[in-house]
Amino acid sequence: MKHGGNVFEIEQKYGFDRRCLLDFSANINPLGVPKLYKKMMMDAFDDLINYPDINYFDLKNDIGEKYNLSVENIFVGNGGVQVIFDFIKAINPKKSLVVYPTFGEYERAIRATGGQVEEFFLKEEEDFQLNAEEIMERIHRDLDLVVLCNPNNPTGTLTNKSLLENLLKKCRENNVFLMIDEAFMDFVEGAEEYSLLSQVETYDNLLITRSFTKFYGIPGLRLGFGVCSHPEIKGQLREHGIPWQVNTFGSYFGRVLLEDGEYEKKTHLWLKEETPRFVEELKKLALFKVYPPSVNYILLKLLPSQLDVKGLKERLLVEKILVRDCSNFKGLSDRFIRIAIKGKQDNDRLLEVLKRI
Amino acid sequence: MKHGGNVFEIEQKYGFDRRCLLDFSANINPLGVPKLYKKMMMDAFDDLINYPDINYFDLKNDIGEKYNLSVENIFVGNGGVQVIFDFIKAINPKKSLVVYPTFGEYERAIRATGGQVEEFFLKEEEDFQLNAEEIMERIHRDLDLVVLCNPNNPTGTLTNKSLLENLLKKCRENNVFLMIDEAFMDFVEGAEEYSLLSQVETYDNLLITRSFTKFYGIPGLRLGFGVCSHPEIKGQLREHGIPWQVNTFGSYFGRVLLEDGEYEKKTHLWLKEETPRFVEELKKLALFKVYPPSVNYILLKLLPSQLDVKGLKERLLVEKILVRDCSNFKGLSDRFIRIAIKGKQDNDRLLEVLKRI
Repeated sequence: MKHGGNVFEIEQKYGFDRRCLLDFSANINPLGVPKLYKKMMMDAFDDLINYPDINYFDLKNDIGEKYNLSVENIFVGNGGVQVIFDFIKAINPKKSLVVYPTFGEYERAIRATGGQVEEFFLKEEEDFQLNAEEIMERIHRDLDLVVLCNPNNPTGTLTNKSLLENLLKKCRENNVFLMIDEAFMDFVEGAEEYSLLSQVETYDNLLITRSFTKFYGIPGLRLGFGVCSHPEIKGQLREHGIPWQVNTFGSYFGRVLLEDGEYEKKTHLWLKEETPRFVEELKKLALFKVYPPSVNYILLKLLPSQLDVKGLKERLLVEKILVRDCSNFKGLSDRFIRIAIKGKQDNDRLLEVLKRI
Repeated sequence: MKHGGNVFEIEQKYGFDRRCLLDFSANINPLGVPKLYKKMMMDAFDDLINYPDINYFDLKNDIGEKYNLSVENIFVGNGGVQVIFDFIKAINPKKSLVVYPTFGEYERAIRATGGQVEEFFLKEEEDFQLNAEEIMERIHRDLDLVVLCNPNNPTGTLTNKSLLENLLKKCRENNVFLMIDEAFMDFVEGAEEYSLLSQVETYDNLLITRSFTKFYGIPGLRLGFGVCSHPEIKGQLREHGIPWQVNTFGSYFGRVLLEDGEYEKKTHLWLKEETPRFVEELKKLALFKVYPPSVNYILLKLLPSQLDVKGLKERLLVEKILVRDCSNFKGLSDRFIRIAIKGKQDNDRLLEVLKRI
């Protein structure tokens, strides 16, 4: 499976120092590792000599407080992707409906349990918005699980809450689990209006996965969580879960969640200022169709021209700029790329290089 | 599942600061986090903003060099226990034979795949040495997997290589996988004479798991690896593995393996000096039967007296000393405890408190 952000592969292949690469291929907050956290971890280094708290008591409490969730419904994992795999293994779905184009690991996790995947495609002609009527028609009693990502990666589309609530109800009527990956939801200002976290206690067929990786600039740390209130699924997770999934550094992350409100504010401010400017400048280039972003990345489609994605990617690499070629996303043609929104200076560098091309 | 080393639980339950606890319940190298590594990690903190290398190219290369293994047979994981779960999931055994008393996660991992467990018990009257004849008789075509730990936890018994090689052959004749957890093997001086690592390329029914947690004093980091040459199992692991299992700090650990030979020497020197002295002193107390350790922990059986393990544990806790009550190990009665061998000063503190009891 190919993912964005593999600066190590580029380093090996092209001999670049990965620290000199301008990586637009991974959707990581350019504010970087929160300063409070960095200081905390330096002090906590010697704690590595202990096993992490096997119950993750503090971490779960802090997550519960931050997102207003019952601690007993919270499951922490070695990155959001671990929770995705754990949830799907616990559900053990025979037949799943996955909404494409999307993150490839849902399908891999389903196949790892031996399950079948039905495909639901967001349509290019509908700008990849979820078509409410069509998805409702696809929910039936033979299904075990529906998986979607909101905001969706790589399209950047944000589905509204009432549509998802209707879908959730229809799923419950048909005895189907609905798993929503909200890995990028923290980037949405006023996320409560979009997130279904608050519905987990009411709907026990709902599972939500979240990640701290992207928003807090710590993909190297591996930390995410999931929420679920279904008694049997929770029992499965407890009985078959692998111990010590989150490392000591991750287990201390709760303090950042609760105390570093500044980081959150700064992130939202940066996005609010930089997104419209960057989108406008990208449009001016007349190289791409620019899909309106809801969070910190933008889907672009190359307009008809002699340049293809492979060529563009290679030209950018010469300038040590990395973008995400989206041709291995099911449901996208080979004309799409995804770029992260970074700080103004980095974005300007990309714009300047694109202008030259 | 209860494990040793849960200082967080003790902290919550008794209100002690976990840093003031003398933890004999987890078998961790008292030399602590290698200094070279600590320095490296402080410098590498900002690398958390990148995903770890999804292929763990450097880490696998360094492990391969250190242990003389082919890189393509190495699988790294979020602690040895992750590799144990991954290997067992890939084998998907219907019927497994597990050698008890031992680490509880083998059975949990087998049950997580829906497999059955047959029990083979090491006998107290044989000082928990593996009985070659008896285990050979238990290998038959209906089995899919045999799991044992060498040196065994918690008994400290080290099984000799020729016995294991015979077992390995018998397993191969019967189409049975043999998984050996060598989590503590690095503590054995001249480990090559005991480890079956070098047999992995010859026997594709052999799987070995290792841990860096104990030897390098980093249980909080989560890092282990496994070795296997079986084409189908390797295919399963690649196809269904969860990405980014090892965090960035773990992915840089290879340098310590290759460059910090001092740490290894110091560890073996400490064990060689401290073990016989500590064992002698423990024997003098006339409180326990002391099982001869092969590595950095000792199994003790309380001699008939008014004191039971629970009472002893409580009395030690008052002194802020934590030992491992072994009563939840299948195949051990409620008269056993396990203690780590620590530095002379800490060991003396335990001896002094035990004398008073």
